[in-house]
Amino acid sequence: MTKLVALLLLSLLAYAAVASTEMQQREAQQCQLRKISTSKPSHRMRSQGGVTEIWDPEEDQFQCAGFAPMRDTIQTNSLSLPKFFSAPRLVYIEQGRGVMGVSYPGCPETYHNDQQFSRDRGQGQRGMSGDQHQKVHRIRRGDVIAVPAGAAHWCYNDGNEELIAVSVLDLNNQANQLDQNLRGFMLASGQSSHGQERYERASRRYAGQSERSHEETFQNIFRGFDEELMAEAFNVPRETVRRMRQDSNRGLIVKCREDMRIMSPDQEEEEQSESSPRDGLEETFCNMKIKQNIELQRETGVYTKQGGRINIANQQKLPILQFIDMSAERGHLMPNALYTPHWSMTDNRVVYALRGELNAQVVDERGNTIMKERVRQGDMFVIPQFYATLMRAGNNGFEWVSFKSSSQPIKSPMAGSISVMRAMPIDVISNAYQISPREAEQLKMNRDPQSMLLSPTRTSS
Amino acid sequence: MTKLVALLLLSLLAYAAVASTEMQQREAQQCQLRKISTSKPSHRMRSQGGVTEIWDPEEDQFQCAGFAPMRDTIQTNSLSLPKFFSAPRLVYIEQGRGVMGVSYPGCPETYHNDQQFSRDRGQGQRGMSGDQHQKVHRIRRGDVIAVPAGAAHWCYNDGNEELIAVSVLDLNNQANQLDQNLRGFMLASGQSSHGQERYERASRRYAGQSERSHEETFQNIFRGFDEELMAEAFNVPRETVRRMRQDSNRGLIVKCREDMRIMSPDQEEEEQSESSPRDGLEETFCNMKIKQNIELQRETGVYTKQGGRINIANQQKLPILQFIDMSAERGHLMPNALYTPHWSMTDNRVVYALRGELNAQVVDERGNTIMKERVRQGDMFVIPQFYATLMRAGNNGFEWVSFKSSSQPIKSPMAGSISVMRAMPIDVISNAYQISPREAEQLKMNRDPQSMLLSPTRTSS
Amino acid sequence: MTKLVALLLLSLLAYAAVASTEMQQREAQQCQLRKISTSKPSHRMRSQGGVTEIWDPEEDQFQCAGFAPMRDTIQTNSLSLPKFFSAPRLVYIEQGRGVMGVSYPGCPETYHNDQQFSRDRGQGQRGMSGDQHQKVHRIRRGDVIAVPAGAAHWCYNDGNEELIAVSVLDLNNQANQLDQNLRGFMLASGQSSHGQERYERASRRYAGQSERSHEETFQNIFRGFDEELMAEAFNVPRETVRRMRQDSNRGLIVKCREDMRIMSPDQEEEEQSESSPRDGLEETFCNMKIKQNIELQRETGVYTKQGGRINIANQQKLPILQFIDMSAERGHLMPNALYTPHWSMTDNRVVYALRGELNAQVVDERGNTIMKERVRQGDMFVIPQFYATLMRAGNNGFEWVSFKSSSQPIKSPMAGSISVMRAMPIDVISNAYQISPREAEQLKMNRDPQSMLLSPTRTSS
Repeated sequence: MTKLVALLLLSLLAYAAVASTEMQQREAQQCQLRKISTSKPSHRMRSQGGVTEIWDPEEDQFQCAGFAPMRDTIQTNSLSLPKFFSAPRLVYIEQGRGVMGVSYPGCPETYHNDQQFSRDRGQGQRGMSGDQHQKVHRIRRGDVIAVPAGAAHWCYNDGNEELIAVSVLDLNNQANQLDQNLRGFMLASGQSSHGQERYERASRRYAGQSERSHEETFQNIFRGFDEELMAEAFNVPRETVRRMRQDSNRGLIVKCREDMRIMSPDQEEEEQSESSPRDGLEETFCNMKIKQNIELQRETGVYTKQGGRINIANQQKLPILQFIDMSAERGHLMPNALYTPHWSMTDNRVVYALRGELNAQVVDERGNTIMKERVRQGDMFVIPQFYATLMRAGNNGFEWVSFKSSSQPIKSPMAGSISVMRAMPIDVISNAYQISPREAEQLKMNRDPQSMLLSPTRTSS
Repeated sequence: MTKLVALLLLSLLAYAAVASTEMQQREAQQCQLRKISTSKPSHRMRSQGGVTEIWDPEEDQFQCAGFAPMRDTIQTNSLSLPKFFSAPRLVYIEQGRGVMGVSYPGCPETYHNDQQFSRDRGQGQRGMSGDQHQKVHRIRRGDVIAVPAGAAHWCYNDGNEELIAVSVLDLNNQANQLDQNLRGFMLASGQSSHGQERYERASRRYAGQSERSHEETFQNIFRGFDEELMAEAFNVPRETVRRMRQDSNRGLIVKCREDMRIMSPDQEEEEQSESSPRDGLEETFCNMKIKQNIELQRETGVYTKQGGRINIANQQKLPILQFIDMSAERGHLMPNALYTPHWSMTDNRVVYALRGELNAQVVDERGNTIMKERVRQGDMFVIPQFYATLMRAGNNGFEWVSFKSSSQPIKSPMAGSISVMRAMPIDVISNAYQISPREAEQLKMNRDPQSMLLSPTRTSS
Repeated sequence: MTKLVALLLLSLLAYAAVASTEMQQREAQQCQLRKISTSKPSHRMRSQGGVTEIWDPEEDQFQCAGFAPMRDTIQTNSLSLPKFFSAPRLVYIEQGRGVMGVSYPGCPETYHNDQQFSRDRGQGQRGMSGDQHQKVHRIRRGDVIAVPAGAAHWCYNDGNEELIAVSVLDLNNQANQLDQNLRGFMLASGQSSHGQERYERASRRYAGQSERSHEETFQNIFRGFDEELMAEAFNVPRETVRRMRQDSNRGLIVKCREDMRIMSPDQEEEEQSESSPRDGLEETFCNMKIKQNIELQRETGVYTKQGGRINIANQQKLPILQFIDMSAERGHLMPNALYTPHWSMTDNRVVYALRGELNAQVVDERGNTIMKERVRQGDMFVIPQFYATLMRAGNNGFEWVSFKSSSQPIKSPMAGSISVMRAMPIDVISNAYQISPREAEQLKMNRDPQSMLLSPTRTSS
């Protein structure tokens, strides 16, 4: 009898464990963040032509924000294969240059290349007057590129150094009508189980399942179709279909057989400067600019002497962002300069450290310091909407790019010339803090005319 | 002691079972679909004047998409009683003809019938100059009708055959601020427990409760009000109120005592062709067209010789769809023709088979074939957003109507003239699949100029 | 052995209890309401200058609707300290008068007060030409004030009686990208554990945690920042920062040291009557009216003789409501008058009783009476979207204010001149209820021309 009871107990424990896992799979979005830490990628997928690193989207801070961050490193003359995601994606080119294609159905072919095939083809060219395809985009360091949910895209590194692209998917976005799991649909090759590693601080769950590995997503969707049916659909030999479906262990990024000349040099600057959103699909998506350079050498949005600079890509500057409801910010804090204490009224943010060091503090509504860390190159961390933050650059300054879940983000600063402190009458401040009107006035005015970025008043951190 | 332990164990097991049920009640939307199968109605509610069949909205595929499908069969001279739902409803008339009323509060009475009462009334007509009510709509086979969330509506079969209406509620719609349970509010009669059957593959849960029967929803809401208070509110005798509240076992559809002449023949064609959305409630809802015929004899949206035809009702053609954020597609595939492999960028879809057979394949982001089935008349299945699908008609072709959770749906085809393959440069395709540029060009061009519907290249499936 | 088993059982029970709690923390929005009861505040936070009362947002009815109701009682010459919330807030001034500041970042200072400092300052005034701050708003009984999510705001009672402000946060609002927990971020002082009481019918959970007390939210967020870093950010002495961060047990509302003269009497009527929404941040938010008086002495939206009056604040009348997607209604039912039976097509509502008594009935889709109660002054209750309601005032009439989760709410009345009954043809009504056309006509017409508010036909309830 006791054995039976013990057995029952064991099975019950097993059941409880399963139920618990089940439960976690199904939880709604929660933001019970007790602590935010800087985060490194938890998974690394090696491919023939590069590496794809993924931050665990189930990590509390990313789960709360609905963000799935990624970093692709594409070797020279390598191609990040065509794929699409179940959520809009905002990409930042951290290093290198290349060309990128983003397919939108129904958009006309706008690029016509007659020279392209003169190299490796001599036979059977009758009637083949060249390659017509949709516009490809020249991308380079500092570019932000908007990829709508479900839009197939590929990227080719035609530069002389590795192309590094950091990106964030907004899984909570309204364009995603499925659940909040990260879904990557490959249109070629796909992730094999061989090239995959898990970093030590491995993800606890992924795509809704405990210890489910990343290899389950990022698979070639052609694998799932009947070969004969596919051959008929494309009206090509079955051998071609076999190639489309094969898992060649090349992964998500492949080496190209020889240099592709997809875009000739003289087209690099053909980039149009249009366009604001108008009616009709063709006008909205097909002619819309999908990228903006926010590198700091160019026009700067916010500038404070000894404070630093900020450039933003929002829906005013890049109208397609209105459709994907995301935006990005590229910033540079001078040595020991401060980002004014503030909160975001509109969006969750994830900050990616490009260079230097940052002392970052984040405070919740309980007055708890849920983050107090030194942020270094390659780190990511989330600043949830409404949570207050205060940041100070290290002795060598700090550079970052941040991704936001609103196309028109608004920060509410606490110090400086457009701050909440400045907006309040002196009597309110004075009574609120039991300080003299003179002190209250200092609180309001002592950072004038600086607003977002504040110059250091001490010389070292 | 062991007995006590056993007892404890049993109660614990019971608790665990309850907790588990509880858990399922409360799960957030999830799309962990391992398999999609064609689905038939799980419940059937017999009424005096017809039958209402319901697909189980808790079936995984419908739960993921947030769809609650239904099919009403209304006998001749029978009335589907006034009701409203907690979500917008898109209706397709599969067979028959009738009239339908959709009430929108604040819209003026636009129909004035002097002749209506000349038949059965002779007494007490003083001052009663006829019946003023809101516009009723003539409906017939092929019509799509948009019913906003919470809008009371009724339908009368004045034709010579059964009127069959297939409809889908979009429970995830923003217009629904409650949870995702199906809620049907009857304004008369209501479902009794007598006329209800459950099909063998019964629903596991319904409206949030394990084995909760459908009789719990679709109830007469007047039953819940105090009789005397109601009599005062309507300022009518209590006997009238008793009639309004009674559960007469007539169900959701009632036989009419004699033919109603709600709409005279000469009014059948008074249908206005307005209107695009403008400002103001009266102009938007009150004068808006609520229906569109998508039967294929009429103007066709997409046509491919030997491929087939598609008609769509989206927000461009039927502006009220913008408000309910749904749309519909009516299609016909010729014998053995194919629907191009594609995915939806914008919406979940549910396909309802009208005639013929279909070989349907659906693939997820793991490359798994989650559906590979033969679809026959009366079947429904969901194609989730982003999931790739490839379909081929049987030897007698295939006809369907599909309902979508977006008013401006966009498909991304993989083969044909507006496909993702066509959008990519030949070099990209060639390197992605390790095929020759010649083969890559075939992949791009061999289906030109066909796009959505592809003619067969073999003669049988 | 049996002891071991018992121990295991106990630990398992403990686990199950924990799992169950965990589960409740994480549940998605649910509206399985079996009963709605009038609700009083569950928590009371005493402050130096007043009291803040909170209804339990985890109570089923509020959780379903996503509402967090609150009531602030501010003593004369006291200041409700600056704070912001994770959701938009709609405030109704039940009693008293005062001034209120709502900060919106980037809006220019529009108020310049030279006289303000003439009282208590004599030294160091060089260059200090007065206080520049954002516009403050004169508020008084009957005002509805819209506070966007994340907008810092404060309120000062400069009248002769207690200022009572009832407000509702819309936690389900799209402006809130975090979860549905109530989050109050204080910019000064903050709630201490001393001043807090829990009413007998205490909340079961709060902010996601069983028995978590309210003291955890409403905390001074400056407490979480490094003191030295803050001093540098504001460029003020550390002593000032210490004052900003201190928890002085003064709570959320403080007594002011002497009368503040933030707004001079002649400015009371400077309120602009603009403005409809236009492009650009400054024009939309900075110049927008944020309040509207819906007290009944003024212009009345709906009026029925012997029935009563309704005033509404919706997006047409107060355009900022479009941005926060909320609205309010102020109503007065004459003695024994009725609110027509109706349901809301667009929003959840919470009704707050101001005066008198109400017999309220709410019915769900199962025809169950989930509410049948007498509502008295100070009570709140939720009417969920789509649920039908019928209300009758007591012998002394009834006054209320209700808050709604839509900026353009639409009710569907069942009786009266714009009702669903009036919209249906007599033949439909007659067949639906098995009544004579004469009776059907009475159902349609007997309340004409009354619509929302119905005069009594009996003299007492």
